[in-house]
Amino acid sequence: MAIQNPFYSPEAQGPYEMISIGRFELEEGGVLADLHLAVATYGELNAEKSNAILIPTWFSGTHATWWQMYLGEGRALDPAKYFIVVVNQIGNGLSTSPHNTDDPSIAMSKFPNVRIGDDVRAQEILLREHFGIERLALVVGGSMGAQQTWEWAVRFPDKVLRAAPIAGTAQNTPHDFLFTRTLLDAITSDPGFNGGEYAANTDVRDGLARHADIWAVMGLTTEFWKTEFWRGIPPLVEGQGWDNFEEFQERFLQVVFGAMDPNSLLVQGWKWQRGDVARNAGGDLAAALGRVTAKMFVMPIDSDMFFPPRDCQEQQELTPGSEFRPVHSIAGHLGLFGFEQSYLDEVDGHLRELLATSV
Amino acid sequence: MAIQNPFYSPEAQGPYEMISIGRFELEEGGVLADLHLAVATYGELNAEKSNAILIPTWFSGTHATWWQMYLGEGRALDPAKYFIVVVNQIGNGLSTSPHNTDDPSIAMSKFPNVRIGDDVRAQEILLREHFGIERLALVVGGSMGAQQTWEWAVRFPDKVLRAAPIAGTAQNTPHDFLFTRTLLDAITSDPGFNGGEYAANTDVRDGLARHADIWAVMGLTTEFWKTEFWRGIPPLVEGQGWDNFEEFQERFLQVVFGAMDPNSLLVQGWKWQRGDVARNAGGDLAAALGRVTAKMFVMPIDSDMFFPPRDCQEQQELTPGSEFRPVHSIAGHLGLFGFEQSYLDEVDGHLRELLATSV
Repeated sequence: MAIQNPFYSPEAQGPYEMISIGRFELEEGGVLADLHLAVATYGELNAEKSNAILIPTWFSGTHATWWQMYLGEGRALDPAKYFIVVVNQIGNGLSTSPHNTDDPSIAMSKFPNVRIGDDVRAQEILLREHFGIERLALVVGGSMGAQQTWEWAVRFPDKVLRAAPIAGTAQNTPHDFLFTRTLLDAITSDPGFNGGEYAANTDVRDGLARHADIWAVMGLTTEFWKTEFWRGIPPLVEGQGWDNFEEFQERFLQVVFGAMDPNSLLVQGWKWQRGDVARNAGGDLAAALGRVTAKMFVMPIDSDMFFPPRDCQEQQELTPGSEFRPVHSIAGHLGLFGFEQSYLDEVDGHLRELLATSV
Repeated sequence: MAIQNPFYSPEAQGPYEMISIGRFELEEGGVLADLHLAVATYGELNAEKSNAILIPTWFSGTHATWWQMYLGEGRALDPAKYFIVVVNQIGNGLSTSPHNTDDPSIAMSKFPNVRIGDDVRAQEILLREHFGIERLALVVGGSMGAQQTWEWAVRFPDKVLRAAPIAGTAQNTPHDFLFTRTLLDAITSDPGFNGGEYAANTDVRDGLARHADIWAVMGLTTEFWKTEFWRGIPPLVEGQGWDNFEEFQERFLQVVFGAMDPNSLLVQGWKWQRGDVARNAGGDLAAALGRVTAKMFVMPIDSDMFFPPRDCQEQQELTPGSEFRPVHSIAGHLGLFGFEQSYLDEVDGHLRELLATSV
């Protein structure tokens, strides 16, 4: 029944565990009869259970980028000191998703709408019931992971001691909604998408390529392309490098996004478009953010074209105990991939300082 | 043979004259056997023929926006003082274009590739042969009109006394190339496009809507949408206004771009992607710009996401006798539409000063 897509295998993503949290009712009314979360952990939980860090994932992302680029001995996110739990978001292709479920009632086009709040509630259950974790030393995530980080800080203020939303907002903006729509329409407009009932993601090759092409424009930056920053990025496949920007686009973003499952991207995109902590306070954003008790560093990427610093700063200013800590990248939103050591060093510096803050 | 599209009628666009400049050989090797330029003029040419202003048009644009928003008595571009010639670019739907030609060898998908330099050469012939104009008091244009303005200043330095490229570059950037590709792919991926051999532009309705949706993201700005600037924009059709951002998108940009001819947009987009004055100097941009003798004000829009001020400034700094004069708009590149009186006042101020400069 399920589609076998090697991109989502442990061989491609690094090890992870599938953990069931059972029947899960969604905010929009759907039900996942047996929600499995794909969870990767690093380090050991201490006896006091006080050293846990939660990392939710971003659109199209998995735990892989985190262990590859952000975790390590001597880094801020150091598995020698912390128990780091990366939870793949619902529908991301690893956790219960349209293409990997055996439940025909939610397979493919029948997958229900999921909200950021659903992920956060599911993660809270996972941490409490499976790991016995009641408080988090830190929640940190990028992009949709930042949306989940904001949601955690608002929804479970008693459980979040520190929070670091990187390149993401507490309430999605109309511009970001429209941007995401262009990404999703690029996929659904491909006749091979067939209303979500394709036989393999390769049936939607053209749509996925157009989706990747829009990422190239809005995810990266004018300076990234003009300075030919891509010359310094190693090829994904040995011997398949690039000599010009069009080759880079074909052999990097088109390859990365072309490997993914279309329905999975749609579930995540729908969720991204509607991220909004104000739902926890009857639509009052200031009231919702006023609930935050975590020490929070709000960390937009300076050149981000759709989660721009200005949008993040407005929300930071509504949040008690928060600080505005923009980070620098030439690569815009996709600076999250960690192309630059300087960017990673900046992120580490802020997270190290945040983790050292007594709360 | 030709498709009748009411958007390109004088009723919709205001009066214009179709002027033949005869057989025209294109830089890419194609030939237009009888090139007609759609030309709108305002004011009177003086006896010395020294008061002529040329305005080339932008992507998807026509002369209409210029007379509606930029020209007028007491304005910088004052028909009481100047003879103002707005020339619709080749392929824009008014001048010789894929859908309006009776020549089957260039109709629809057979239309040849056209370059910015072709437009400028054609305009030079038009001005000289039809109007007897040898020197221009000013060339001013926005976006692709700015590309043509740069090209004029480099290619015909003796003929251009003053130049004002607004929101456009002398050499297109890779980012801008990739952005334009997403616009064009949105159209060509529609099955109704049928390889360019559709029966009516409405066959490509979905593709044109996706094209408009990408404009909403890259052509406008995060602040435009967040501040709901659209509330102050009058409806295109009486009684068909908007109460939310999605309605605005449906009833404004989707309507505007949905009225246009798909092949026309493709001809213009291909041209836009390859704008490059360096072609006049063996690929050496600095050498090409070094030829400019016009007094030039380089006028990017501060919030423009694809012709950003930085790109324009780098080229301005290579251009003798030029000044960097950014203008302000909340609406990004589409600030060119003239939504804001403050923007129009700024443009007028710069142009008035430029026209007062003795050269």
